[in-house]
Amino acid sequence: MKHSPLVQRLIDSFTVLPGVGPRSAQRMTYWLLERNREGGGRLAAALEAAMQGVRHCSCCRNFAEDDLCPVCADQRRDQSQVCIVESPADVLAIEQSGEYRGRYFVLMGHLSPIDGIGPEEIGLNLLERQLGQIQELILATGTTVEGEATAHYILDMVRGTSVSVSRIAQGVPMGGDLEFVDGATLAQALKSRRHL
Amino acid sequence: MKHSPLVQRLIDSFTVLPGVGPRSAQRMTYWLLERNREGGGRLAAALEAAMQGVRHCSCCRNFAEDDLCPVCADQRRDQSQVCIVESPADVLAIEQSGEYRGRYFVLMGHLSPIDGIGPEEIGLNLLERQLGQIQELILATGTTVEGEATAHYILDMVRGTSVSVSRIAQGVPMGGDLEFVDGATLAQALKSRRHL
Repeated sequence: MKHSPLVQRLIDSFTVLPGVGPRSAQRMTYWLLERNREGGGRLAAALEAAMQGVRHCSCCRNFAEDDLCPVCADQRRDQSQVCIVESPADVLAIEQSGEYRGRYFVLMGHLSPIDGIGPEEIGLNLLERQLGQIQELILATGTTVEGEATAHYILDMVRGTSVSVSRIAQGVPMGGDLEFVDGATLAQALKSRRHL
Repeated sequence: MKHSPLVQRLIDSFTVLPGVGPRSAQRMTYWLLERNREGGGRLAAALEAAMQGVRHCSCCRNFAEDDLCPVCADQRRDQSQVCIVESPADVLAIEQSGEYRGRYFVLMGHLSPIDGIGPEEIGLNLLERQLGQIQELILATGTTVEGEATAHYILDMVRGTSVSVSRIAQGVPMGGDLEFVDGATLAQALKSRRHL
């Protein structure tokens, strides 16, 4: 015996989600059908609405429902200071730190020539057109090989303009014992030590 | 900054799924929006269709799209032999063993007076009306306290009729070393030993 067609289709559809394999998909399907059809219906409607309605901000490429995202539309924020991050989740993390009052530019990825992701795919042509209005760029891409390469590429692109560029500090995280910090991070923290 | 309303609504909706907390929900939402809007749309449609279209078989209470599920509608299967299980997933597990040619009765739960789940909620009134056409009942509820209690309740209900009742064997799983089997299972396996 197989699942009935509608059940099988829902199980297969759930496996598009990250971290969801056939067994979790079956559990989710049965759970919704047995105990929470209303929640399943709401999830369907929310999915439909988000997939159709969520666009990208025409200024920073973050998710937005209007032409501009709330940050780019907010005139109280410093629109001449731009923090470059890889994903919308990074924006959220920086916003939650409460330290930043400029705006963002979201690459939606990083340079990865092997996957066909070049400067245009991560929106650097759009960023280049905005350089005239920008005074400071903060490179907050990841500290992975790809994140570093992307940061270097942007640095090269901006060189020769009047824009000041910085990279977020790399070092030991706050509130932790040194013994639990990995070697690469410690080496970087020593190399970037600040004179007091 | 918060998520935009459509994004927040989708994140909240994902948390209805079992095993999905706010962080996984955010990861799923971003992943679909960034990389697989088509898959998200298909998931929405599959959810909608399943929540609306999946009903319960009028004979065995398993999930079905028509009045009868494929097993109950299959005249080549022995309709007088009924295996009682707690959930549709149990039906699938038994079907995959390939050993069984009778039909099923799916309780969709087990007796749990404390949660207000009595005999009627698990369909025992429907089962009682079918007893005239049943020759053998196999109790395959779980080996938990609730599963055992439910099996006993059904045994009491059937007593006095001509239906023969059995309980699936409990003992040591196939293909495993004895040293990894828990004590309760070993005790049961010894108690239920078969003379050869």
